Amino acid sequence: MRFLIAAAAAVCLAHGSAAQTTPAPSPIPAEVQRTLETLRARAMASDDAYALTESLTTEVGPRLAGSAAEARARDWAVAQLRARRFENIRIEPFAIPYWRATRQEAAVVAPSQQPLRIVALGGSAATPEGGLEAEVARFASLAALRDAAPSSVAGRIVFVDEGMTATMDGSGYGAAVPRRSACPRLAREKGAAACVIRSVGTDGHRFPHQGTTADFAAGTRVPAAALSNPDADQLARLIARGPVRMRLDIAIEREAAAQSGNVIAEIRGRSAPEEIVLLAAHLDSWEEGTGAIDDAAGVGVIIATADLIRQLPRRPRRTIRLLIAGAEETGVFGGAEYARAHAEELPWHVLALESDFGAGRIWRFRSRFGAGAGGHHAAMAQALNAAEVMVSDTQPAFGGADIAAARAAGVPVIDLGQDGLDYFDYHHTADDTLDKVDPANLRQNVAAWAIAVYLAAEMDWDFRAAE
Amino acid sequence: MRFLIAAAAAVCLAHGSAAQTTPAPSPIPAEVQRTLETLRARAMASDDAYALTESLTTEVGPRLAGSAAEARARDWAVAQLRARRFENIRIEPFAIPYWRATRQEAAVVAPSQQPLRIVALGGSAATPEGGLEAEVARFASLAALRDAAPSSVAGRIVFVDEGMTATMDGSGYGAAVPRRSACPRLAREKGAAACVIRSVGTDGHRFPHQGTTADFAAGTRVPAAALSNPDADQLARLIARGPVRMRLDIAIEREAAAQSGNVIAEIRGRSAPEEIVLLAAHLDSWEEGTGAIDDAAGVGVIIATADLIRQLPRRPRRTIRLLIAGAEETGVFGGAEYARAHAEELPWHVLALESDFGAGRIWRFRSRFGAGAGGHHAAMAQALNAAEVMVSDTQPAFGGADIAAARAAGVPVIDLGQDGLDYFDYHHTADDTLDKVDPANLRQNVAAWAIAVYLAAEMDWDFRAAE
Repeated sequence: MRFLIAAAAAVCLAHGSAAQTTPAPSPIPAEVQRTLETLRARAMASDDAYALTESLTTEVGPRLAGSAAEARARDWAVAQLRARRFENIRIEPFAIPYWRATRQEAAVVAPSQQPLRIVALGGSAATPEGGLEAEVARFASLAALRDAAPSSVAGRIVFVDEGMTATMDGSGYGAAVPRRSACPRLAREKGAAACVIRSVGTDGHRFPHQGTTADFAAGTRVPAAALSNPDADQLARLIARGPVRMRLDIAIEREAAAQSGNVIAEIRGRSAPEEIVLLAAHLDSWEEGTGAIDDAAGVGVIIATADLIRQLPRRPRRTIRLLIAGAEETGVFGGAEYARAHAEELPWHVLALESDFGAGRIWRFRSRFGAGAGGHHAAMAQALNAAEVMVSDTQPAFGGADIAAARAAGVPVIDLGQDGLDYFDYHHTADDTLDKVDPANLRQNVAAWAIAVYLAAEMDWDFRAAE
Repeated sequence: MRFLIAAAAAVCLAHGSAAQTTPAPSPIPAEVQRTLETLRARAMASDDAYALTESLTTEVGPRLAGSAAEARARDWAVAQLRARRFENIRIEPFAIPYWRATRQEAAVVAPSQQPLRIVALGGSAATPEGGLEAEVARFASLAALRDAAPSSVAGRIVFVDEGMTATMDGSGYGAAVPRRSACPRLAREKGAAACVIRSVGTDGHRFPHQGTTADFAAGTRVPAAALSNPDADQLARLIARGPVRMRLDIAIEREAAAQSGNVIAEIRGRSAPEEIVLLAAHLDSWEEGTGAIDDAAGVGVIIATADLIRQLPRRPRRTIRLLIAGAEETGVFGGAEYARAHAEELPWHVLALESDFGAGRIWRFRSRFGAGAGGHHAAMAQALNAAEVMVSDTQPAFGGADIAAARAAGVPVIDLGQDGLDYFDYHHTADDTLDKVDPANLRQNVAAWAIAVYLAAEMDWDFRAAE
């Protein structure tokens, strides 16, 4: 309950004379508080976010960046936004490198013949026609591969067999991702034939976890793939018994410039329309699943949140803008394009937030505000208690991939942090499907989002400046 | 605790004069009880069954009935049994129809393009070269398909969308299996192009569940496949929106007569070697996983149990025989062959039991004994309490698939019933891998098995006859 103490302290500083035992007067006017309660109650009574998630994952399904399916998803988003009478609905197109695996097969060929379940990592090179075959060199970590003599690697298939820790806040991902992004380059530098990694994932199912590499745009120079955790276990057990030979067969299609795009829509502000609160999520998904938790649920949350606010009798002071980004998975192309295309507007972005961590309950609030804006943090945290977001943390917020470029340009961000303990069980796998989304959690997500977004759009708080 | 009452009642009948408040004298001599305790303690201190499970699933991997991998599994079993100095180790070969899917792909093609995850059901016909495409006709149950007018089915892909209930004792399976076994024939009778079913499985992962059809040997006359549960959900949601067309592409290889075989080994009895206690499990598995819970764990349990008894200073009165059966999955060919080849010996089989329901803890004891053998049931149930098998049930035992023919010929059977609440999450899927096996559970399994098997082999109990 650290935030209650922080909130009290902040209020005491602002109202120096108040005794610590007196409840601090809220900086939020009663009328705004009534509206927040209306929004919360309506969010908790609505399955709109779930219906949107269901619609996108069912009607469009998988939507790889730059594919025809991603284009259909843009059309879907425009239709949804039009039906809800948002303003300034538009697609902002841009070109991206397109990459897709058309075959991704692997097998142990000696000492016994056994299939392995893999996916090619984003940007992977193809194997030679008919596949390649080599002995496997196992490394317990990326660091061990880094330290390895090239002679122990050359000509082999490198296998980086490092695990991942499940955490509520997803911090295990950051620790695990380097083996995915860096392995192909390291393997190549030491003369390896290919690189396979234990999936960046926390489940024990036969689903390899997709994801991009550091070399997506240029393409990795050796084939790179992820094994499911049980397959990595099997390979490790076989290697413990003696030399293992693996066959890898990866075919790729590429285009230098394929079409992607961001979908934008707004609720224009009533008195400060040039000031923008930006709500982001991304439309594309990896191909194996239907991208329900990554990130149809986020798309559902931001549209449902904005639509709740749109239905109020009076629109808020500031503009609420939706950024439904394209091509996040393969390299955050949509987020970069948004920051580029809207660079002149970024100083008018008073706050940005993204929903891209699944469909769990929101348990934690973080912000990245200017030094003097702690009072806004405290007031927002307290308001979020109504949606049962009970933890406030003074670590700076991350924001989200698609608003990272905006954040880097100085736009204040908040995190409405979801419980992601099982997020990396499904993330980037075939198993990322609608049944992993709990409608009750999405209701709570929208309740918390509506509170934070309405406050940011209605109050004249400056999250950047000192008070 | 029904069995304690039953046990007390049985003992009271046998010893008519004993007062109900006096503890009934055990029919098990103290020396035998000491041996049971030794066996139990050694079982609980040993990971032998797990090591066997690990070895078979790692070194052989998947082992489809009639394949080269199944032959390697027989060699593995013979090597294990020789290393443990069992007696009369032999392979009893037989021929089976061989069937394997070499391609099994499906997709929704309208109103949107979306891949679906399927497996071809055992015995499925191939689609025409290049696949077939048709509108899907959904039926909420097999009964609904049975009642359907042929005009609503003809030319379509029938989709039987019936769920399955998870239960500890696996009784949900019996209720669900008819849709797998009967669907292709029913579909064909009504002129359908193909039949797909919601998997006979209880999980929510993208793993379709394999399994055989009633027409395995002759082959189904229409292609037949199972969808994973999330894919069945997706298909049902799409159908709720309007007509759906599906493409199905199944390629099959077949041989009329491939090689399979049962592996047999014994511990010969010291004074009644012609009397046999039969311990069964099966060696083959479906191809997608490594058959860890179905049935490498069972193979591990029966070998480890027999080996514990073999290591006693004095062998038991009767012969303990292992039946490590081939070709169970595709049609219980090994069990039928055993009953045929050993028909003359079946009257000397005093008891048979099989481990083929995964790797969960044993919680329940059942028997199928002659009318007068209730005392043996009660005594065995009470002895099993030491291994924490606390539930005894007077419903007749099932025995197991590979000993069903023996049971039909009058051989008494018992069930050491495992907790199978999650068994059908993994059963017949790619996800049936070693990580689903808990070594602690296998220790308890062997403890219970050793108690039941030693009692059956050492005591002169007649499970068939009245006392």
